[in-house]
Amino acid sequence: MSLESTSSNRSFGGWHKQYVHTSRTLHCNMRFAIYLPPQASETNKVPVLYFLSGLTCTDENVMQKSGAHRIAAELGIAIVAPDTSPRGDSIPDDPEGAYDFGIGAGFYLNATEAPWNRFYHMYDYVVKELPVVVESHFPVSHVKAITGHSMGGHGALTIALKNPEAYKSVSAFAPIANPMNVPWGQKAFTNYLGEDKKSWEQYDSCELIKKAEGHLPMLVDQGDADSFLEEQLKPERLQAAAEMAGYPVEIRMQPGYDHSYYFISSFIEDHLRFHAKYLLD
Amino acid sequence: MSLESTSSNRSFGGWHKQYVHTSRTLHCNMRFAIYLPPQASETNKVPVLYFLSGLTCTDENVMQKSGAHRIAAELGIAIVAPDTSPRGDSIPDDPEGAYDFGIGAGFYLNATEAPWNRFYHMYDYVVKELPVVVESHFPVSHVKAITGHSMGGHGALTIALKNPEAYKSVSAFAPIANPMNVPWGQKAFTNYLGEDKKSWEQYDSCELIKKAEGHLPMLVDQGDADSFLEEQLKPERLQAAAEMAGYPVEIRMQPGYDHSYYFISSFIEDHLRFHAKYLLD
Repeated sequence: MSLESTSSNRSFGGWHKQYVHTSRTLHCNMRFAIYLPPQASETNKVPVLYFLSGLTCTDENVMQKSGAHRIAAELGIAIVAPDTSPRGDSIPDDPEGAYDFGIGAGFYLNATEAPWNRFYHMYDYVVKELPVVVESHFPVSHVKAITGHSMGGHGALTIALKNPEAYKSVSAFAPIANPMNVPWGQKAFTNYLGEDKKSWEQYDSCELIKKAEGHLPMLVDQGDADSFLEEQLKPERLQAAAEMAGYPVEIRMQPGYDHSYYFISSFIEDHLRFHAKYLLD
Repeated sequence: MSLESTSSNRSFGGWHKQYVHTSRTLHCNMRFAIYLPPQASETNKVPVLYFLSGLTCTDENVMQKSGAHRIAAELGIAIVAPDTSPRGDSIPDDPEGAYDFGIGAGFYLNATEAPWNRFYHMYDYVVKELPVVVESHFPVSHVKAITGHSMGGHGALTIALKNPEAYKSVSAFAPIANPMNVPWGQKAFTNYLGEDKKSWEQYDSCELIKKAEGHLPMLVDQGDADSFLEEQLKPERLQAAAEMAGYPVEIRMQPGYDHSYYFISSFIEDHLRFHAKYLLD
């Protein structure tokens, strides 16, 4: 379980670092990034917020564009950003190179259909493998929270709903809230999981929240000028499912905001302070 | 003098917008970006901070990566980011496509040598044309400050030193402080201005500060782990020239920081608050 350091930048008194490691889960080399706040040391292990990115992204989008380092440095929270899929010449990709399936579009699930099922296990990677790698190499504790954007918002919500004991809190920016019933999710789930929609329910926030045991603090921000809102995101379905299930969730519609990192950066401070309440409790 | 809007994003309660216009100075279409804070209106025109970017950059780097919007929104300051050179198929470029000369590397001067002299007039564009465009289309005042990074730090310092009546204050991140005496500057000045080094002095901060009339507030930040520090940047030359000339300048060496936007984002708040003291006075 060795890590190769590929970059290191001082940022807000802490360090932004990128690493490559060989993932046993994904059968390829994977890059991730970590932001270590100035408070982190072997005698002061800090909690970790995982940030799952959206379609086409890598670890770099959130680290470069969100402005999260400033607040993480103030609060003493590490941020870990995995990639969005397995990558490399040996990894099967969408035959037409579409942006919304295959490389850059792992959807944070465990694929069961060939040829995807050998590599596309981003669920296990984020839930099981990556935390072990991170916790064994850096001065961080086992205390975790999770957030993400768009496809990564879907990932954060579903992973937290399935593992409420592993995370203190969950949030999302413009998540794909009901992937079973939107084009992005249907394309991905059909290919990765097959035609049986029963198998899709284990990766759909609206289905998972119905049978959730234990309520994690949950915050969702959504811009009302987001061009994907009506066709792909559908936070109103999550709101309705949460209300039916009696699961408390705060979904905020932010007037005028779109799907970009200008939206994320405008509200990342709220999310970090939300998670800090539970991570540092 | 018409502007074509090419993008618009709500950010921190204000707006990030990109425009294309036909530049009479540069004889090509130019893109720039503006951040308008929420306070800006026709009855409340806000001052403008110009941010000049470094080699290879466009308007997008600072707008996406610096985290400046948050502080500009708090303070009520607009930010304008021009491109770093003329662009387009008709624009002459470095024959080998080098990153440090030609397109993306205009060095904020007025070229006198063919074929560059018809297009490469970034000095006049930033000093004369762009402020007229900006002030005639947006709810901003004539009150201006200027900053920049690397090549753009050189641009900000030289433009402010040559036009102390036009700017309230100047700052720079890791500026090319003595371009006459470093490889980046020598390559650019030889090509754009010719062999006569006398003509280079009008675009060298260390030369300009010697004969500066009127002292602008001046702040410079430099990372001491910047891989370009010794060969290309040379802030110690600016420090020495300023001391000789009795020009007050604060040059801060920031331990561990490199040349990246992680460095800029770590200190952009200091720069905005520095400029705010004079812009909002």
